[in-house]
Amino acid sequence: MNILSLQQQLQRLHNNRIFELAVVAIIIFSALVIGVKTYDISPKFLTLMHWLDLGVTLFFLLEISIRFIAEDRKRDFFKSGWNIFDTLIVIFSLMPVQDSEIAFVGRLIRIFRVLRMVSIIPELRILLNSLLKALPQLGYVLLLMFIIFYIYAAIGSSFFHGINDQLWGDILVALLTLFRVMTFEDWTDVMYETMAVYPFSWLYYLSFIFITAFAFLNMVIGIVVNVMNEEHERAREAEKPTPTVTLEQLQLEIRELKAMLQTNQ
Amino acid sequence: MNILSLQQQLQRLHNNRIFELAVVAIIIFSALVIGVKTYDISPKFLTLMHWLDLGVTLFFLLEISIRFIAEDRKRDFFKSGWNIFDTLIVIFSLMPVQDSEIAFVGRLIRIFRVLRMVSIIPELRILLNSLLKALPQLGYVLLLMFIIFYIYAAIGSSFFHGINDQLWGDILVALLTLFRVMTFEDWTDVMYETMAVYPFSWLYYLSFIFITAFAFLNMVIGIVVNVMNEEHERAREAEKPTPTVTLEQLQLEIRELKAMLQTNQ
Amino acid sequence: MNILSLQQQLQRLHNNRIFELAVVAIIIFSALVIGVKTYDISPKFLTLMHWLDLGVTLFFLLEISIRFIAEDRKRDFFKSGWNIFDTLIVIFSLMPVQDSEIAFVGRLIRIFRVLRMVSIIPELRILLNSLLKALPQLGYVLLLMFIIFYIYAAIGSSFFHGINDQLWGDILVALLTLFRVMTFEDWTDVMYETMAVYPFSWLYYLSFIFITAFAFLNMVIGIVVNVMNEEHERAREAEKPTPTVTLEQLQLEIRELKAMLQTNQ
Amino acid sequence: MNILSLQQQLQRLHNNRIFELAVVAIIIFSALVIGVKTYDISPKFLTLMHWLDLGVTLFFLLEISIRFIAEDRKRDFFKSGWNIFDTLIVIFSLMPVQDSEIAFVGRLIRIFRVLRMVSIIPELRILLNSLLKALPQLGYVLLLMFIIFYIYAAIGSSFFHGINDQLWGDILVALLTLFRVMTFEDWTDVMYETMAVYPFSWLYYLSFIFITAFAFLNMVIGIVVNVMNEEHERAREAEKPTPTVTLEQLQLEIRELKAMLQTNQ
Repeated sequence: MNILSLQQQLQRLHNNRIFELAVVAIIIFSALVIGVKTYDISPKFLTLMHWLDLGVTLFFLLEISIRFIAEDRKRDFFKSGWNIFDTLIVIFSLMPVQDSEIAFVGRLIRIFRVLRMVSIIPELRILLNSLLKALPQLGYVLLLMFIIFYIYAAIGSSFFHGINDQLWGDILVALLTLFRVMTFEDWTDVMYETMAVYPFSWLYYLSFIFITAFAFLNMVIGIVVNVMNEEHERAREAEKPTPTVTLEQLQLEIRELKAMLQTNQ
Repeated sequence: MNILSLQQQLQRLHNNRIFELAVVAIIIFSALVIGVKTYDISPKFLTLMHWLDLGVTLFFLLEISIRFIAEDRKRDFFKSGWNIFDTLIVIFSLMPVQDSEIAFVGRLIRIFRVLRMVSIIPELRILLNSLLKALPQLGYVLLLMFIIFYIYAAIGSSFFHGINDQLWGDILVALLTLFRVMTFEDWTDVMYETMAVYPFSWLYYLSFIFITAFAFLNMVIGIVVNVMNEEHERAREAEKPTPTVTLEQLQLEIRELKAMLQTNQ
Repeated sequence: MNILSLQQQLQRLHNNRIFELAVVAIIIFSALVIGVKTYDISPKFLTLMHWLDLGVTLFFLLEISIRFIAEDRKRDFFKSGWNIFDTLIVIFSLMPVQDSEIAFVGRLIRIFRVLRMVSIIPELRILLNSLLKALPQLGYVLLLMFIIFYIYAAIGSSFFHGINDQLWGDILVALLTLFRVMTFEDWTDVMYETMAVYPFSWLYYLSFIFITAFAFLNMVIGIVVNVMNEEHERAREAEKPTPTVTLEQLQLEIRELKAMLQTNQ
Repeated sequence: MNILSLQQQLQRLHNNRIFELAVVAIIIFSALVIGVKTYDISPKFLTLMHWLDLGVTLFFLLEISIRFIAEDRKRDFFKSGWNIFDTLIVIFSLMPVQDSEIAFVGRLIRIFRVLRMVSIIPELRILLNSLLKALPQLGYVLLLMFIIFYIYAAIGSSFFHGINDQLWGDILVALLTLFRVMTFEDWTDVMYETMAVYPFSWLYYLSFIFITAFAFLNMVIGIVVNVMNEEHERAREAEKPTPTVTLEQLQLEIRELKAMLQTNQ
């Protein structure tokens, strides 16, 4: 019974369904703790929260240690981005937080622990990976849209500077205002304000909305078509029958017949 | 003429087109009664409404009894979710409503009677079933989006707590505020308020909008691709010709020829 | 030269490219007249407008008469919805407008003359026909969405009646408010108002938004898939090669060979 | 070493990867200069900006000269729209700007220099070209939507003229208001205002929203289907195998067999 090495025993534990559920439960619990903390709670309860938080951190430390020891090749452990993420979360959680500035970071770290849910549940990991895989496709479209945004922001902050400093004061503020216009958020208020000075400034807004909407539409369609084609490609590959008899084989056999007839003659 | 059993007679009645139309008409009528009740009406008219309502309830009781008796196997009747729904609606409608708190529920039950339209019209039933079938596909995406929402809500209520208690007071309120931001509903007002304290908080909002929009986009595309592939699969199945002659058969016949020639020699 | 009948001459005129362009030009001109009328213009100019308007009406009368006479079978003329539309527009335009109430209708008729653009330009006619063809597909989905709207409106006007009579006063007003919520137009203002009385009313709004958004999404995807499948069907039909030699023919020829060998033996 | 002509040397330089990166870097730098100018900067810094701007202009002049000299056929240089765009940008940048009115244009020219990014990076050039290629597909749909907008604007400015002159004053203003309604931007405020006078004017807004949303939806779906079909067409073309043996060839060989047998008899 004691023949199994520690590593094998930990591997067993790690792959155990109950252990997995316990990890998920602890993550949900730590998420709830974070949620509860946002309410006004009595100092007593806050102390309890503190100890619970420490408990969660120690459990995560234990879990990651088990995963590390259970790993056959220690090097491969840090090849997975999720393992590095989990380790960093635990290390930062363990750091003593007294300084108020670091407390700021400490709180963020505790919140990001909820993301461990994604690293634990395989379906979510696959989903996130597929999301990340679609990102490079968007790269050049986002660059093109940024150039469009930048040009409009430069024009906007050049001409509307004096009208509303809060919306068009400098190029960064103008970029934010244009993003607001793209989401249609009170964009007419922004427009009517500048139309009082430049009556034809509606051309600026309408052309911007048309160009960005059109570019966005094309981007979406482009991605849909890409994803579809990949799927079709896969479907075609899977579909291709491996024919048991080909026309070439039939031709060969007919030629054999001919040869036989010729020798027959 | 009286040879038909009661059950068979009721089955006939139930499948009668006029009876079906009568049921639909009564449901529309009951919907109109609900609509009329929302207007200020004289007490006299209200009493009339009450009696009409009772009439509708009794008609529904009659209709469901007919359906139940007409059913060959009584057990199968409650296997259909729609039959259970219809029965519950009738039972709750029959309950005497005096207590003001139950009156609340009674009113809701009467409103949900409109949903019986879906249980009666087959096309709507098919439509709703196909909607429900698409739900599980969304499951993990919704979980992922909830995790993103939860993390942002935790960050938001931690840092913006003091700025606007009504928007960021606790994590539930912050979740609602973030949903509002996702629908672009006056999201700049929310942002400008926090930017007055944390000038870089626009990063929080823009990253949130980009992440949720991107995740949502991927979800939609994923479902489109899924539905498409299923359709293609079906189309391919239906398309596959059952060839009357195969290459294999031709090969066999050619081989027979060879054999004949060989015996000929 | 004068051998051609009047009908044939009119057919020639009607199919003449220059005549077609003249009709389009007159329609654009009449649209501009309608546009100019919305500005404050001097009475002198208004009189000019009146005469121009009469000129347009007479030209349209002439054009439709030419089309009618040029038609080979007079009965077929009124089989086209567009011809009926054009005729009605001309008839209503010719009616003397003195009564202020009919003047209301007269103005509308003049505006709808712009729609003649669609009846003249074939590409637009095709486009509109394809739009109308997609409508029945939407029928049951719109019915389902209306049922959802109706149920929510009944609940809303029952419970929120006392909170804001202008938004939830009766079921029609509530339906309009829900449409507003679906377009995300200041929906949080509507929600915060009711949340002050019923703290859990956010459930009402969020469930409504999720259900309608989800139903809408499914509808759009359904139409895309439908249109796609139709296109694929057409592509497949067009693609099917008419094979010059079939496997069946080959089989026949091989069997003939066998027969020849057998008689040979 | 000096055997290479100036043209060949410049071609080499132009195709040099480092030179390309330098051009991109200078464009980004000029974009940053434009961005920095929107901030309040000291006059000293402004003079520096002026000299930097001149430097960028001279660099662009140099770069375009190199490209022009490196071109084998001078005529082909101006066949590319991007080369014409680059040349015009440089020419306008070189013009002395003293007059305040031309300064206006000068500023715009400097901003449009950012667009040179698109002319330099091939991926962006391809992306923009594909966007422009999709434009004609939209042509007739945009015309149809403009006709719908025009009719609604004519109705709107006719009837709501007196209610709010700023929104419905004339047909141009009404078109802008309708565009606002289509983006759902505070459209209920516009509606409630007219509903106070014409209680049934919600029909006007709802029908407009349904028609434009429906037309837009159809347009998007139409484009998706078009793009998809083109892709499929291409995929099919690429897929078609060039069969090494056809059924026709087999038939020929079988017929040869038959002929042999017949001569055999």
